Amino acid sequence: MKWGTHLVDTDVVEADPFAASCPSRQVLDRIGDRWSVLVILTLADGTLRYGEVAAAIEGVSQKMLTQTLRGLERDGLVTRTVFAEVPPRVEYALTDLGRSLLGAVSGLHAWATSHIGDVVAARSAYDAR
Amino acid sequence: MKWGTHLVDTDVVEADPFAASCPSRQVLDRIGDRWSVLVILTLADGTLRYGEVAAAIEGVSQKMLTQTLRGLERDGLVTRTVFAEVPPRVEYALTDLGRSLLGAVSGLHAWATSHIGDVVAARSAYDAR
Repeated sequence: MKWGTHLVDTDVVEADPFAASCPSRQVLDRIGDRWSVLVILTLADGTLRYGEVAAAIEGVSQKMLTQTLRGLERDGLVTRTVFAEVPPRVEYALTDLGRSLLGAVSGLHAWATSHIGDVVAARSAYDAR
Repeated sequence: MKWGTHLVDTDVVEADPFAASCPSRQVLDRIGDRWSVLVILTLADGTLRYGEVAAAIEGVSQKMLTQTLRGLERDGLVTRTVFAEVPPRVEYALTDLGRSLLGAVSGLHAWATSHIGDVVAARSAYDAR
């Protein structure tokens, strides 16, 4: 099975998030998730402990962060390494796959930060009409 | 107020989605939303009627699509034009702001379609351990 394709019945087809059955749609959800995007950007510079990730992302609850990191680990985007110390040290890092996503995620981040003024203005205008 | 900045108290600061109070975090949610991404990509080629958007995105409910289009309109990314015909014709199109988002959204889409195999394999490995 070639990367970028998946099996539907016996045919190899191109991944297509417009099709309800295509798992690329779930991938889109994952990488579009607010917390996932912020975690991936936080890990861009290198390995971090749980507490360092938490400190970088204001307002994320422990539950949400744990859930987000587990989801990213399951998707093969992040590694979780536990060191047998007291207290146990847990470190997170991007995998090569996670690193391959940095370009797209940075693009979203750049758009969000540079166009926030336009969006806020559009919302005010919409709500006022 | 310069684009790309927003007001916190009396200071103009850079937009920062890592800060809980920054509206760019909501913008990140919007553009990361599965249905928003698919609608923006669907409208990339030009103006479409409601039914044409619905037909392009398999499995989206009328409620979700209506809600997504309204959110995109409120954010200034999509225009909604109603023609006084019987039955009324309603057309949707990207605004310039919406069009400026196409690059980032296409990047996500390209990553999702080309790396879906890796993600599916990672999930199987995670669930099997």
